[in-house]
Amino acid sequence: MVTSIGIVGLGLIGGSLARRAAARGYEVLAWNHTPRPYETARRDGIQCVETLEGLAQARPELLILCNPLKAMPSILARLAPAIDPDVTTLSDVGSVKGMVREQVSQAGLGGCYVGAHPMAGNEHSGFEASDPALYDGALWAITVDADTEYRRFADVARFITNGLGNELIVLDDATHDRAAALISHMPHAVATAMINELCASPERNIAAALAAGSWRDMTRVALTDPNRTRAMIDEDRTNVEVLLRSMAARLLAFADDLQHDDGVHGDAEAAIAEFFSAGQSFRDFKAQTARGKQTVQGESQLHETTLDIDPARWQSELLESAKQGERITRFLDDRRVTIRRQPII
Amino acid sequence: MVTSIGIVGLGLIGGSLARRAAARGYEVLAWNHTPRPYETARRDGIQCVETLEGLAQARPELLILCNPLKAMPSILARLAPAIDPDVTTLSDVGSVKGMVREQVSQAGLGGCYVGAHPMAGNEHSGFEASDPALYDGALWAITVDADTEYRRFADVARFITNGLGNELIVLDDATHDRAAALISHMPHAVATAMINELCASPERNIAAALAAGSWRDMTRVALTDPNRTRAMIDEDRTNVEVLLRSMAARLLAFADDLQHDDGVHGDAEAAIAEFFSAGQSFRDFKAQTARGKQTVQGESQLHETTLDIDPARWQSELLESAKQGERITRFLDDRRVTIRRQPII
Repeated sequence: MVTSIGIVGLGLIGGSLARRAAARGYEVLAWNHTPRPYETARRDGIQCVETLEGLAQARPELLILCNPLKAMPSILARLAPAIDPDVTTLSDVGSVKGMVREQVSQAGLGGCYVGAHPMAGNEHSGFEASDPALYDGALWAITVDADTEYRRFADVARFITNGLGNELIVLDDATHDRAAALISHMPHAVATAMINELCASPERNIAAALAAGSWRDMTRVALTDPNRTRAMIDEDRTNVEVLLRSMAARLLAFADDLQHDDGVHGDAEAAIAEFFSAGQSFRDFKAQTARGKQTVQGESQLHETTLDIDPARWQSELLESAKQGERITRFLDDRRVTIRRQPII
Repeated sequence: MVTSIGIVGLGLIGGSLARRAAARGYEVLAWNHTPRPYETARRDGIQCVETLEGLAQARPELLILCNPLKAMPSILARLAPAIDPDVTTLSDVGSVKGMVREQVSQAGLGGCYVGAHPMAGNEHSGFEASDPALYDGALWAITVDADTEYRRFADVARFITNGLGNELIVLDDATHDRAAALISHMPHAVATAMINELCASPERNIAAALAAGSWRDMTRVALTDPNRTRAMIDEDRTNVEVLLRSMAARLLAFADDLQHDDGVHGDAEAAIAEFFSAGQSFRDFKAQTARGKQTVQGESQLHETTLDIDPARWQSELLESAKQGERITRFLDDRRVTIRRQPII
């Protein structure tokens, strides 16, 4: 069982993670690209290390990369000769997983790597904005491949559940990145296209004057730094491209249906009805989830079960479990976990 | 100057309007399709009338249709023989304007009609949810055509500004309906397409598990009653169709750029940069508007001016003013108004 954690990068995500782990009794070592946060971090029980190489050489059992994605190649190049892969398992918190694994493998560290992506964050940044509570209720996606050693996965997963008190799902990189494109990267592109549509209109000031909640909510993410959005989409570009083509096809098909729905073409009327009913299972899911949040603690226990993880096919078994809306909440021993069932779509 | 107001329909919008007008000293008469709200309404000083025909025959100077759009044709048919168009100016609060004017004209009431659409509302409905404060800070769009009599427009506009304390812009029906499609009806279709995209994915439960603020905000309007959304889009279908095709073209072009941005095609890189900068004037506008809200009352007066409305070309003059981000805040006399300038895009 892991007891020492190394953190690379004391920004909002890494700083909050370091503080939460320290508060929960882990030995936490950290390095940051500037020593600015060290004084405050030390007061939170975080051992700050002067060099990145020094952090790796301190041989933490788990070393978590919380640096920006664009710094990943240079950081991995510096870590590679300093890490002892027999002792240290490498992980990260990046929002895309395929690209990170590729970079880790290119640095020769693929054998000791388990990917991770916590669903946590806010609009702030930097250690001064960090807060152990940022991870309250956070779900983590753990990404593995066929070569991932089970013991390394279990170390990371147990740290997240039993250690940090969070829940997790297990995915492969491709599934993670497709899902992230669907619920975040593609929508960011759509929101951007929508404000571009407004700005291209000669009546943009009138439209903006009439705008209410629907417009505000649907364009909010287009107002954040466009360079950050551009980088995020670029890192997951293949999935975003596929989804944008699919969305464009949906919008065109619906436009055709609107054009042909003249009371004569019954097909168009049926297609329009289908357009408005196709997402009903998501509406039901949201209503169920909202109701679920109102149930008392005791009731939610009803959706808990245990699972004995099959050592021969754990990757596919846990991916299938995630697809069924299940989350791992706790390790009971090395192979036995508790599972919480969510409403499904 | 108008002193008596008739309200057709005491729902959320009509009820709040009736109560605000009564509180501000107008004689308010109202009819509702059921007498259920009458007892409460009477306590607010609203004179409730037993029949729709009776309301028209009471000869209010301004009669405002606040009924659902789908009831419009039958209500207009009943009003037509009962209205005295020399005394009464007819208006409405519908969210599409071209269709309503057509129905009003078909009922033979086009000559006494001035369209109106207040940007007010919330997720509730019915008189029990009504509140005069619903109109606090509301902007109204007034729609006119070449045949609109200036005195009728001025009566409606003066009631809204000097009477209700609201601001307004003056549009033609087509401009209003295109703008409404851009900032509301098209985005509703896009949000619906987005939840359809999720539901079509074999990994929908994983995607939903990873979903955060961007997905929640961009799909919120797809969770409301899809039949209402369908009706809203249907009423403005031609404009929605055009915008959906334009949005699809934007998404496809961006997908092509992502595909071709391989470090070799400089064009694709430039197009991607353009995709993320094209909406910058809207980002700047939002930042300016947010700052504007923080300025003290005195400063905002700096953006006020007066306008003498030209009787020969008032429709086009006021449309142009709206396109420049200006709003009418008050009538100083029949033809002289104060104007407030908003930041422009």
